[in-house]
Amino acid sequence: MKIILIGASGTLGQAVANELGQRHEIVRVGRSSGDLRVDITDSASIKALFEQTGPFDALVSAAGKVHFGALAEMGEAEFAIGLKDKLMGQVNLVLIGSRYANDGASFTLTTGILSDDPIRFGSSASMVNAGVEGFVRSAALELPRGQRINAVSPNVLVESMTGYAPYFRGFKPVSAADAALGFARSVEGAQTGQVYRIW
Amino acid sequence: MKIILIGASGTLGQAVANELGQRHEIVRVGRSSGDLRVDITDSASIKALFEQTGPFDALVSAAGKVHFGALAEMGEAEFAIGLKDKLMGQVNLVLIGSRYANDGASFTLTTGILSDDPIRFGSSASMVNAGVEGFVRSAALELPRGQRINAVSPNVLVESMTGYAPYFRGFKPVSAADAALGFARSVEGAQTGQVYRIW
Repeated sequence: MKIILIGASGTLGQAVANELGQRHEIVRVGRSSGDLRVDITDSASIKALFEQTGPFDALVSAAGKVHFGALAEMGEAEFAIGLKDKLMGQVNLVLIGSRYANDGASFTLTTGILSDDPIRFGSSASMVNAGVEGFVRSAALELPRGQRINAVSPNVLVESMTGYAPYFRGFKPVSAADAALGFARSVEGAQTGQVYRIW
Repeated sequence: MKIILIGASGTLGQAVANELGQRHEIVRVGRSSGDLRVDITDSASIKALFEQTGPFDALVSAAGKVHFGALAEMGEAEFAIGLKDKLMGQVNLVLIGSRYANDGASFTLTTGILSDDPIRFGSSASMVNAGVEGFVRSAALELPRGQRINAVSPNVLVESMTGYAPYFRGFKPVSAADAALGFARSVEGAQTGQVYRIW
C-alpha cells in the first residue's frame, strides 16, 4: 500500500512509520520536514499536498495541535487553535483527500484519551478529540468508493511523560509503538467508523 | 432559582420552560424574541446579555445551529456554521457566563443523538454534538465555586418529525416534554460532567 503519513517526524508518527513501513510504502509528510510538507490548517496547502502525492491507499494523520490551559484563562482564541488544527485540519485531510484516494482507501485520524477521561487544563483537547471521533463515526457512513475512516485514541505516551507527567498522574502511559498498532488495525483491517482506544 | 433559558422560543426551549417554569423563574432569551436577545455566535452579545440578566442560578441552552448536508458537498464553510454556533456558541455561554453565575450554578447544554448514532447528512451534527459533550466532561473539572455543567442529548423530537422523518427512519422519536426532563435532572439534580441521553 502507498500510505501518506502526516506528522511523520513526531513521536507517534515515527512509531507509525516503523510499524507500517515494514510492509508498505510510506510518504512522510510534516509541517517543516519529511518527503513532502503540509500546513493542515490551510486547505490550499492540503490540496497542494495531494496534487504531489497523487492517488494513495491510506492516509494516517498523527498531527494536530491544541491549546492546554486553565479553563478560566481560556476564551475563543485559545479554543480556536485546536478547532483549526487538530479538528478541522484532520477533517480537511479527509474531505479533500477523499477525492484523491483510491477505491477502498482508509483514513486514520488521531484523537486521545482526554476525549473520554478529562484532566485539568484539557478542556480544548477533550472537546477537539471528541469532535474528531464524532466526525469519524459519521463520515464512515458517507465516504465514497468503499473508503474507510477510523480514529486512534492513545493514552498519554511513555515518550511524552517527561513533560506531561504532572498533568497525567495515575494514567498508565502506553508506548508509541503500542499506539502505532492501532493505526495498523485501522489501515490493514477492514472496519470503519471505529475509535481504537490504546489504553 | 433564576434560570436563563437560551432558545426559549424553540420546540425544545418551550418544553423546558413548561417543565422548569412550574418551579422556577425563567428568563426567556432568543435570537429574535423573548425577554432578552442574544446572538450566541458573538461573544460581545453574550457579554451584553449577562450584563442585563445579572447573577443567575442556572443557564439552559436549547440553541445551536448546524449545517446538514452530504459529506461530499461539505467543506470548511459548512462545518464552520456548527463550530461557530452550536459548539463555540454554547461553550462561550459557559466561559463568559461562569463569571456572572452564582456559586453552585449549573450550565446545561444541548447536544443530540447523532453524537452516538450517526445518519447520512449529519457529519457536522455528529462532530459538533460530540465536541460539546467532550467539553462538558472536561469543563466539569474546572468550573469555579461549585458550578456544574451537563449536556442533554435528545433523540429526534416527535415535534420535528414532519421535516426530519426521512433522515431518521427507524429512530423512535421522543417528545420535547420528555427531553425537557433531562434539563430538569441537570438543573435540579447534583451531578456534573454528565450527558443525559433521552432516547
